[in-house]
Amino acid sequence: MTTTAPAVSRRAHAVASSTIRDLLRLTQRPEIISLAGGLPDPEGFPTAAIAEVARRLVEHEPARSLQYGPTEGDDRLRTWVAERHTAATGRTTSTDQVLITTGSQQALDLAARVLCDPGDVIAVEDPGYLGAIQAFRAASVDLHPIPMDDDGMQVDELDPSSRMKAVYTVPTFQNPTGTSLRPDRRATLAATAERHGLILIEDAPYADLRFRGSPIAPIAASTEHSLSIGTISKTLAPGLRVGWMVGPEWLISAATTLKQAVDLHTSSLSQAIVAELVTDGDWYDQQIASVTERYGRRAGVLRAALVDRFGDRVACTDPDGGMFLWATFDGIDTCALLPMAIEAGTAFVPGSAFSVERDLSTGLRLSFATADEPGLVTAVDRLSEAIARHDGH
Amino acid sequence: MTTTAPAVSRRAHAVASSTIRDLLRLTQRPEIISLAGGLPDPEGFPTAAIAEVARRLVEHEPARSLQYGPTEGDDRLRTWVAERHTAATGRTTSTDQVLITTGSQQALDLAARVLCDPGDVIAVEDPGYLGAIQAFRAASVDLHPIPMDDDGMQVDELDPSSRMKAVYTVPTFQNPTGTSLRPDRRATLAATAERHGLILIEDAPYADLRFRGSPIAPIAASTEHSLSIGTISKTLAPGLRVGWMVGPEWLISAATTLKQAVDLHTSSLSQAIVAELVTDGDWYDQQIASVTERYGRRAGVLRAALVDRFGDRVACTDPDGGMFLWATFDGIDTCALLPMAIEAGTAFVPGSAFSVERDLSTGLRLSFATADEPGLVTAVDRLSEAIARHDGH
Repeated sequence: MTTTAPAVSRRAHAVASSTIRDLLRLTQRPEIISLAGGLPDPEGFPTAAIAEVARRLVEHEPARSLQYGPTEGDDRLRTWVAERHTAATGRTTSTDQVLITTGSQQALDLAARVLCDPGDVIAVEDPGYLGAIQAFRAASVDLHPIPMDDDGMQVDELDPSSRMKAVYTVPTFQNPTGTSLRPDRRATLAATAERHGLILIEDAPYADLRFRGSPIAPIAASTEHSLSIGTISKTLAPGLRVGWMVGPEWLISAATTLKQAVDLHTSSLSQAIVAELVTDGDWYDQQIASVTERYGRRAGVLRAALVDRFGDRVACTDPDGGMFLWATFDGIDTCALLPMAIEAGTAFVPGSAFSVERDLSTGLRLSFATADEPGLVTAVDRLSEAIARHDGH
Repeated sequence: MTTTAPAVSRRAHAVASSTIRDLLRLTQRPEIISLAGGLPDPEGFPTAAIAEVARRLVEHEPARSLQYGPTEGDDRLRTWVAERHTAATGRTTSTDQVLITTGSQQALDLAARVLCDPGDVIAVEDPGYLGAIQAFRAASVDLHPIPMDDDGMQVDELDPSSRMKAVYTVPTFQNPTGTSLRPDRRATLAATAERHGLILIEDAPYADLRFRGSPIAPIAASTEHSLSIGTISKTLAPGLRVGWMVGPEWLISAATTLKQAVDLHTSSLSQAIVAELVTDGDWYDQQIASVTERYGRRAGVLRAALVDRFGDRVACTDPDGGMFLWATFDGIDTCALLPMAIEAGTAFVPGSAFSVERDLSTGLRLSFATADEPGLVTAVDRLSEAIARHDGH
């Protein structure tokens, strides 16, 4: 009956499915100890607190938790975000500078569409966060990759053009490398943004998960040219899909107008649950401390097992927090290694999945958040089996 | 310090804030009986059921309700949507044809971006649903308006060009008019879509809310060239932000890949709550019946009050379901009337807010969903005061 076949748009073609998420499907078999995903350990979810708050909100505050709400988000949650941002940056931040988003992923989509027209440019870390790369490409934005080293983005490589509108960075415990941007490089980035009229998109999903060392001030502490992105996905529960963006009022106002067209507003129930929990005295700080302590122990166990098993053959980053570390194995193609690892009963994400343009074929990302300590040791044993088989080929 | 001021993108400039939502802010004062918003009556929210299901899910199924989930959505919910779609259309629908979205609003954003490149065209109803117009404009899509009459979109006015990719319609109890598309026009639309390779975006948020007459088959019953959009916002609770799209696999697959970049997935907790409630025997059908019965009584009261007060001066649509009716007052500019109505203690949305290109200056939309029966009568009295003042000018 059809004489003309419909087709997807060119821009839809440009968005490739995420390698990580396709992989996750393969590695959900219970016998596999996967270090591939970025899943927080569900043991850390405060289920009793969430269940009780959810019940109370629905029963006693249905207009707040079940009705349509303002696009900007739950007032109490926005106020808390503004206060926390003020404390972290030393800059007074008003509620009007806060937009609640459907996870921090939505903040990336909104930021790209509000800041950039098709063909505009955002500078990104290479390797970088896949979800950001996808969101920017979906918005027809061109990427300007900046190489990473152990001190984060090599900011001297940044070369702003007239079409560059923003720099995107995960400066603290980066995904995928686990490294943090050195303070002097943060200052350089802030100065560059001001000189060239760029917006610094500072994505900080892991910044609260520090298990060693002293906090580094966010880049937003040194410039108003910043858009800070946050989330409770790594500290409370990702399934609630609650994140936020904090920035200049003109930018938040434009993002709010766009969000109205995109999903009206974020789940009222999710927002209200989060607002109640994070404003409950020092409950949230204790929750973060509990998650962080667990991840710190696991990071130590994973790194020790890698060094123990592979010695000089592996080079690992040494994160002070977050959920990931990056390992490089001389002479091993990690894409070819992956199916062997899955057969041996473990999984990781090959470095090339995070590449914008660099050759990262000998690198891989390992998460120390999901598996427990004995599981991490077993996973490294299995990785070792896979590498032995890879060497035999 | 700034030498170059950042600015929003041209496409962000194209998205104007919704008149309705800006108005809603003005009419939240308790003394105003607003018929402007499209808010379901919170008295109809099944708070006890939602509270109990939420508590149980978080306590006993944290991996389902709090962890990251698949972009496609909760399996049980997708299965239910597929089964319901099969029953409504008589076409066997698989789970792979279903994507759960963050409210049906997100389905509009995803559909526009997946089907259209900038400058492509979607035909829309005039007057039409504001949220769709906003979403399509935000995706840089051009609109081809088709005038409405008492039998819905005047499909003979549809003139497909090579850049037209889709037709968007709310065929049953349309927002803003309350009218339904006549069956023969549905057949014409389906044939036109197949002949020209268009996708029919059939948005049906109100279709379940029928209080009179017999159901009309959805357009998706007569063509595979359809993308059906649904939601529980009008039957359960809008604040959960759960909607869906059902269509050909190639389209659902592309929309899923885009959604991954846009917000990863819809709130796991919201999805699981909805899945549990809608699959609980005939609970959901009873819930719909209860909401519908209430809206039917209110529609009758509102329409009778309008005819009683204004007689021949008003022409009203006579909806068989949904939440809205459309009234036209000869010789009255409803934009000029609105501030007088607010001063008299009521509110509506002026017709011009829903215009794509038609002159709708004497029309207005009234909701019979939010206010109770005495409130509706009082609101019409207040509207009458405002009109008396308008006449005096």
